Amino acid sequence: MRRTELRPYVLDDTLILECNIAIIELKDAQETDVKINFEAQAPPSELVHNLSSLLEATEGSDVSFKVKEEIFPAHKIILAMRSPVFRVKFYGPMRDESSRSITVEDMQPAVFRGLLHFIYTDSLPPLDYLDDDEYEEMVRHLLMAADRYAMERMKYMCEIKLCGVLHTGTVATTLALADQHHCSKLKDACIGFINSSNRMVGVMASKGYESLKRTCPSVIADILEKAAKTRRI
Amino acid sequence: MRRTELRPYVLDDTLILECNIAIIELKDAQETDVKINFEAQAPPSELVHNLSSLLEATEGSDVSFKVKEEIFPAHKIILAMRSPVFRVKFYGPMRDESSRSITVEDMQPAVFRGLLHFIYTDSLPPLDYLDDDEYEEMVRHLLMAADRYAMERMKYMCEIKLCGVLHTGTVATTLALADQHHCSKLKDACIGFINSSNRMVGVMASKGYESLKRTCPSVIADILEKAAKTRRI
Repeated sequence: MRRTELRPYVLDDTLILECNIAIIELKDAQETDVKINFEAQAPPSELVHNLSSLLEATEGSDVSFKVKEEIFPAHKIILAMRSPVFRVKFYGPMRDESSRSITVEDMQPAVFRGLLHFIYTDSLPPLDYLDDDEYEEMVRHLLMAADRYAMERMKYMCEIKLCGVLHTGTVATTLALADQHHCSKLKDACIGFINSSNRMVGVMASKGYESLKRTCPSVIADILEKAAKTRRI
Repeated sequence: MRRTELRPYVLDDTLILECNIAIIELKDAQETDVKINFEAQAPPSELVHNLSSLLEATEGSDVSFKVKEEIFPAHKIILAMRSPVFRVKFYGPMRDESSRSITVEDMQPAVFRGLLHFIYTDSLPPLDYLDDDEYEEMVRHLLMAADRYAMERMKYMCEIKLCGVLHTGTVATTLALADQHHCSKLKDACIGFINSSNRMVGVMASKGYESLKRTCPSVIADILEKAAKTRRI
């Protein structure tokens, strides 16, 4: 301690040296260090990894699905936990306890595999190995599968993906899909896309347009009305 | 366009007005808007919520645990997916397929409830309703339960919590626990805590010290050696 920090004075017949002493609490410092050190190393959640391993190992599987020629083992409780449709099927009042093998019609094995992937991991399957057309086609089928099993979040994530790849050649097909599966945001995005930058002529020449007119006639009116409102026609 | 932005000059007998024109691509702008708008609204993962609902509703439960006087229904596949001990019990070569009711000895119902909470949600149960002593006691028991069922992440999270509440009165008890359950980081933290700020006398006077000496004599040597190394004695 430097001499200038001492404040000496005399009181009665006593010399008093007044000084401030700071006590550094080692305890606090150490505890904080230990805490920070630990939290930095806390491992991330393992739930998705555990579920993903379960799907791969199919340990304890109590149901299997036949899709075309492929067999997919699965777990009733996981399916029911994630999809209201599976919940009713396996645990509803009309359930068939003995049904351990279920045949899935009108779906490609790759799409069912993608559905199981989402059920177990809460994310869409990897799609980057597909070319642009295959990608769009696969996402459309995943959206249909999600709707069939009432997987709302999966359906929404497919909508997001389709919104990102709108183009003149296929937007009519996507719009028909959006209308049939009640995807209002995707439908709005398709109509907005068609009505921007005079794309209508190109859309009318595309393969999906005739089908759109036939299956979803009311959507044609939606396009016209939206165009009129935004003063494009 | 302002006149200053035009750069007029004469070339041969022609007056040239040079200006920059920026073309705003409506297509890109629109697509990006739609994409951002969608992603912002993408709902968060539902896995933890689904698992949490499953634990509460106990729908499709295929096993139940009797802990003292309380009964806890659960799902073998979820338990096995999360704990190697349950995996061997339910799906290992020595499994007993018929066992649907299991009695758990040497554990309080609240601790088992906390274990199930972690198994289904990947997080420790809420503990803020407990006072300081009860909190520390509960976390110690959760650590023991985690170790018993080989839930490594749960055990580690209990270690972190105990590191945050080290104090002279109970650190000997925590150190004995850390030693018995092979929690090396918690053990180091306890020894570091004891050796800082001359706490040894207080620790020796605490309830847990005699028990520590008796059950984990080698730890006493660890404290002494660590203290010697850091030149505190």
